[in-house]
Amino acid sequence: MAEPGHLLSLAILRRTDYVIWRMKKLFSSLLIAASVLTSRAAIHTETIEYKQGDTTLEGVLVYDDANQGKRPGVLVVHQWLGLTGYEKHRAEMLAQLGYVAFCADIYGKGIRPKDVSEAGAQAGKYKGDRALLRDRVNAGLDVLKKNELVDTRRIAAVGYCFGGTTVIELALSGADVAGVVSFHGGLDAPSPADAKNIKCKLLACAGADDPFQKPEDLAAFESEMRDAKADWEINFYGGAVHSFTQPDPGFVNAGAKYNEKADKRSWADMKRFFAEIFQ
Amino acid sequence: MAEPGHLLSLAILRRTDYVIWRMKKLFSSLLIAASVLTSRAAIHTETIEYKQGDTTLEGVLVYDDANQGKRPGVLVVHQWLGLTGYEKHRAEMLAQLGYVAFCADIYGKGIRPKDVSEAGAQAGKYKGDRALLRDRVNAGLDVLKKNELVDTRRIAAVGYCFGGTTVIELALSGADVAGVVSFHGGLDAPSPADAKNIKCKLLACAGADDPFQKPEDLAAFESEMRDAKADWEINFYGGAVHSFTQPDPGFVNAGAKYNEKADKRSWADMKRFFAEIFQ
Repeated sequence: MAEPGHLLSLAILRRTDYVIWRMKKLFSSLLIAASVLTSRAAIHTETIEYKQGDTTLEGVLVYDDANQGKRPGVLVVHQWLGLTGYEKHRAEMLAQLGYVAFCADIYGKGIRPKDVSEAGAQAGKYKGDRALLRDRVNAGLDVLKKNELVDTRRIAAVGYCFGGTTVIELALSGADVAGVVSFHGGLDAPSPADAKNIKCKLLACAGADDPFQKPEDLAAFESEMRDAKADWEINFYGGAVHSFTQPDPGFVNAGAKYNEKADKRSWADMKRFFAEIFQ
Repeated sequence: MAEPGHLLSLAILRRTDYVIWRMKKLFSSLLIAASVLTSRAAIHTETIEYKQGDTTLEGVLVYDDANQGKRPGVLVVHQWLGLTGYEKHRAEMLAQLGYVAFCADIYGKGIRPKDVSEAGAQAGKYKGDRALLRDRVNAGLDVLKKNELVDTRRIAAVGYCFGGTTVIELALSGADVAGVVSFHGGLDAPSPADAKNIKCKLLACAGADDPFQKPEDLAAFESEMRDAKADWEINFYGGAVHSFTQPDPGFVNAGAKYNEKADKRSWADMKRFFAEIFQ
């Protein structure tokens, strides 16, 4: 009986080994799945110099380098103070959502307004020269498009205040992007006829009590979108004034103030918009 | 060697049994998890008679009876044609999201307008008597609140067209709900002072090109919300007219038409709102 017993033992051992191997494989798959779910994103941040005409610009590229492969790209356009830590933070948030984010520089390398007066002068310069503004924002878009991690069919642009106005100009320039999101951007429309160029979807997130958003500008924006049969949406957040997503908009008064609720809602609305345009 | 071999076989068998038992347990857990993820909801639909004063009303309760335990409740208020298959379908969609939905009946048992003329007469009656409208919608809310499956701290109301106006009236009545969502509801505000009663958050989903939404009504609604410091939002969907969520609004013309894009967007916006108010 020894021999058959030994053979049986071996057979059972093999069966046991097989079962244990299968279990190990299963647990290993479960562990990998769990680590993917719980791993902290490895955020890569990189300063990039680029040109528009003869002007040197300096943007910041941010992505999660724990991921592999192509993914949607999001251009982030700064508010009137220029490219600050605020935009980099938003870019990190976008990288954590799985996108490649590039903070464009509209003003130029080293041009970072130190106060409200300098900010007003810079923003005013580009708001008064929309052709130049479009060239500058398109130069930033080109950097994003050329990045090898970016799926060029899935690109969006988001902008804050001055940057919100800028991403609408990007759409009006006929840029080949899937969508643009303006956060408390001025919606004045100096070139409404250009709306015929629009190739993308537009979402404007606006403070319902923003004193810097003139009713006539709002009405002009809506007419412009309607006349061009653009694919557009505008969300108004009650109780929110200007700069509602920015803890430090350069100045704080009754007309420009951070509003956590409107910040979170507009961010969620942007995510819903991205889910649609990045399908 | 037979005896030790036999003992070894037994030990290995026990080990094998244990391993197989552990695997079975693991697979069984995985199967349960998979079945929860893939199981089709078992939707329970029930007609409920209830009263407001001496008037008998007939609503429809819908929930997923595969779930156990308390969950948020959503009151669904019908458009001008009264309680139709449209509201029941929306209630099913809400049940599939995990909510208990109750389609209120504002007009009364058996009062189901057969055409535009009857619908206009019924809707006009209640729009002209907001006190009665509030009583009727609150009677429906009471049915939902008394349902043992409903977590009474987490109740919302949604309404379409006439129902959209009605859920705003529900909020103005001071009803103890977490939030209301109006889909293409008329936002005229005959009793703006009542906004001080509002205890809930409000989201209005509106067609940007809705010809039945008078600009003066919109302005009055916004003033009402602002003056009361209510927690409100309004989303405008470009290209959408009246009844944009309803494939059959009773009539179809350039001013009232289904818009799939705006329908999907507003439904997603409602889900975002629910995620916030049902935290």
